[in-house]
Amino acid sequence: MADVRAVAGGRGGRADIAPVEGGVTAPRGFSAGAVHCGIKPSPAALDLAVLAADAPASAAALFTTNLVQAAPVTVSRQHIDRTRGVARAVVVNSGCANACTGAQGTVHAKQMATETAVALGCAPEEVLVASTGVIGVTLRIDRVVNGIRAAAARLAPGGGVEAARAIMTTDPFPKEHAVTVSTPRGRFTVGGMAKGSGMIEPNMATMLGFLTTDAEVPPALLRRALLLSARDTFNAITVDGECSTNDSLFAFASGKSGVAIDEDAYPALVDGLLAVSRELAVGIVRGGEGATKVIAVTVADARSVDEARQVARTIANSPLVKTAVHGADPNWGRIVAAAGRSGAAFDVNRLTVRVGGTLLFEDGLPHDESAPLAAKHLEGKNVRIDVSLGTGGGLSAVIWTCDLSAEYVRINGEYRT
Amino acid sequence: MADVRAVAGGRGGRADIAPVEGGVTAPRGFSAGAVHCGIKPSPAALDLAVLAADAPASAAALFTTNLVQAAPVTVSRQHIDRTRGVARAVVVNSGCANACTGAQGTVHAKQMATETAVALGCAPEEVLVASTGVIGVTLRIDRVVNGIRAAAARLAPGGGVEAARAIMTTDPFPKEHAVTVSTPRGRFTVGGMAKGSGMIEPNMATMLGFLTTDAEVPPALLRRALLLSARDTFNAITVDGECSTNDSLFAFASGKSGVAIDEDAYPALVDGLLAVSRELAVGIVRGGEGATKVIAVTVADARSVDEARQVARTIANSPLVKTAVHGADPNWGRIVAAAGRSGAAFDVNRLTVRVGGTLLFEDGLPHDESAPLAAKHLEGKNVRIDVSLGTGGGLSAVIWTCDLSAEYVRINGEYRT
Repeated sequence: MADVRAVAGGRGGRADIAPVEGGVTAPRGFSAGAVHCGIKPSPAALDLAVLAADAPASAAALFTTNLVQAAPVTVSRQHIDRTRGVARAVVVNSGCANACTGAQGTVHAKQMATETAVALGCAPEEVLVASTGVIGVTLRIDRVVNGIRAAAARLAPGGGVEAARAIMTTDPFPKEHAVTVSTPRGRFTVGGMAKGSGMIEPNMATMLGFLTTDAEVPPALLRRALLLSARDTFNAITVDGECSTNDSLFAFASGKSGVAIDEDAYPALVDGLLAVSRELAVGIVRGGEGATKVIAVTVADARSVDEARQVARTIANSPLVKTAVHGADPNWGRIVAAAGRSGAAFDVNRLTVRVGGTLLFEDGLPHDESAPLAAKHLEGKNVRIDVSLGTGGGLSAVIWTCDLSAEYVRINGEYRT
Repeated sequence: MADVRAVAGGRGGRADIAPVEGGVTAPRGFSAGAVHCGIKPSPAALDLAVLAADAPASAAALFTTNLVQAAPVTVSRQHIDRTRGVARAVVVNSGCANACTGAQGTVHAKQMATETAVALGCAPEEVLVASTGVIGVTLRIDRVVNGIRAAAARLAPGGGVEAARAIMTTDPFPKEHAVTVSTPRGRFTVGGMAKGSGMIEPNMATMLGFLTTDAEVPPALLRRALLLSARDTFNAITVDGECSTNDSLFAFASGKSGVAIDEDAYPALVDGLLAVSRELAVGIVRGGEGATKVIAVTVADARSVDEARQVARTIANSPLVKTAVHGADPNWGRIVAAAGRSGAAFDVNRLTVRVGGTLLFEDGLPHDESAPLAAKHLEGKNVRIDVSLGTGGGLSAVIWTCDLSAEYVRINGEYRT
């Protein structure tokens, strides 16, 4: 994104960030391989990927908060707990979520880790697992096992491009990004890939994210940086307010750049993770089901970040706001009403609403004369909604979402499982 | 609804309930009048109604929980507080919500009450006010005042039919209902009318409900009965999860039947209010924007009614569940995932999901062989989704909603303010 350099500069000028090619395998010490193993019907469609570190790497992971969790989530959580944040690889399949598959599903997820471990010569616990696709369907484990062997044989430092394609389900385009982070103590690289485009057919789709860096980061610090960067990126996007049984976000640090991250260098690592994660997360929104516009909802002057986030999320998930944006209608009333039912406490007479920077509501009253200017902004692909709660608290948050189109209904309704 | 008599019978057989004609003016002691005063553009469209009691009546009201509240809500709340639950009339206009209209809006809402009071010969505080329609637009108060005088001159015991039409905005049909309640101590009547079809163009629509009875009910008891009956009816429906600045529900008791409601007769009053409110509330869902089906989501075997309601509401508001129902897709996975993210705690291996009575998910695994039968049920106009959480708590709740169609997007998106 255009503002990544500015954001990084804004944090005290510690790090200079620049985009580079290579995606998830851009950082040194990582390789990836992907194949079509036969889960997706089309022989041309990649459906299995292995992302591997050359040597044991620091690892951190965040998983879905849905009470119903898929087998790969359960197994990955166990593995990363047992190794205390060390991993050699993550194996991913698309086309089948291995969710709601009972005890057999757990056996299959473990088998995926074991096969990968055998191919790489590491312990099964050093392999994490992710799946995305149809739920309630048993994995064709024989095909997956063959696919793991073939993908491991294809592992290459330039394999990020094909891996980003292999994890797609109904995503309209692959999502990958990488940046170099230059700091006083040297330069390191952060890369990543992601998939997800709203909950999708035939049952649901999943948000999966994979981040890599060649900085040297202790597991606990990596986890802290991942939590912080995800809060304003992967956890700040919503397509339809749904959350899946398989959502997972992984981060791996190989240390191969020789740049060690301690508390002093920590902000530079966070900036790098933020830069890559934001690009991937906004890419997920841009590729949302039926999406024609990306909407950034910023809520400012709240008493807490949580309060700002709660208001922004209510506005971003409002079907009325999303349909209004789709129709390029500067409907401040729907924004005010969504803020009002968000649960946040504010004085409507101190609330302001701007669309594309144009003031539409202030002092409890509309500025109808500005509607045409705001409507013009809404014709574009990138929409900004800015709300100030006027509490004097000064805290803010942003949530990204997309518009709601008839195409969303078509994708999700006019298909039979 | 077909099951009203059964529901009443189920509460110990105290009351026998039967539908009657007449809507909100079916109970003795009430009259209504409606006119076109000039807020709606079409001269044929009624846009103002007065519902009046022949003498001061007990009154109760519930208002929107949205932090942003329209002027008529503020004024009605003040009036009913001052009289401690006594009212002669409620005046309603459609076409303009008188919301986000600043101090001028409050002046106008008070003026509506005062004009009505003058016409009826009562105190302004004995008149309640409701508005629905465009927000952020100032009322044409001169037209409204003339309309109030004309409507008051038309007051008639059979005026309920035209009043139910005058409160409509984009509602596809008027919603009115009445029942007689026969008890050991005599028979009384409950009537009602409502409007609302989701938050609608050009800004939002409102849920307004008006209930009348000729039972004799002290204000405090009327309020308690209204709260109880609204919980499982007006507060158990959702079209798009939105809540308006103007939502209001009123109840009036004239006492003209001579049947006095005390604690013993209280269940019969609740049954009568429930019967009318359920018919009106389900009518609002049936008339929801773009709705083609009514969906009853029942969640059973929860540890609390609140928990059951929370799960039912999450499922009912899920765009994925609503689009799946629209497409007649028995997508148990979306139902399980929505339950999982609802915040309720349950064991997915004890969860069961039924669609149209057909078991689709049990013991953590799908019953795919039953999908065709469930799909057949989903072809119909009335859809039942039954979820049991299997907590052993035994408590349940139902939420009514409608499917999500491309027409909803069209109505809400392809229109410019």
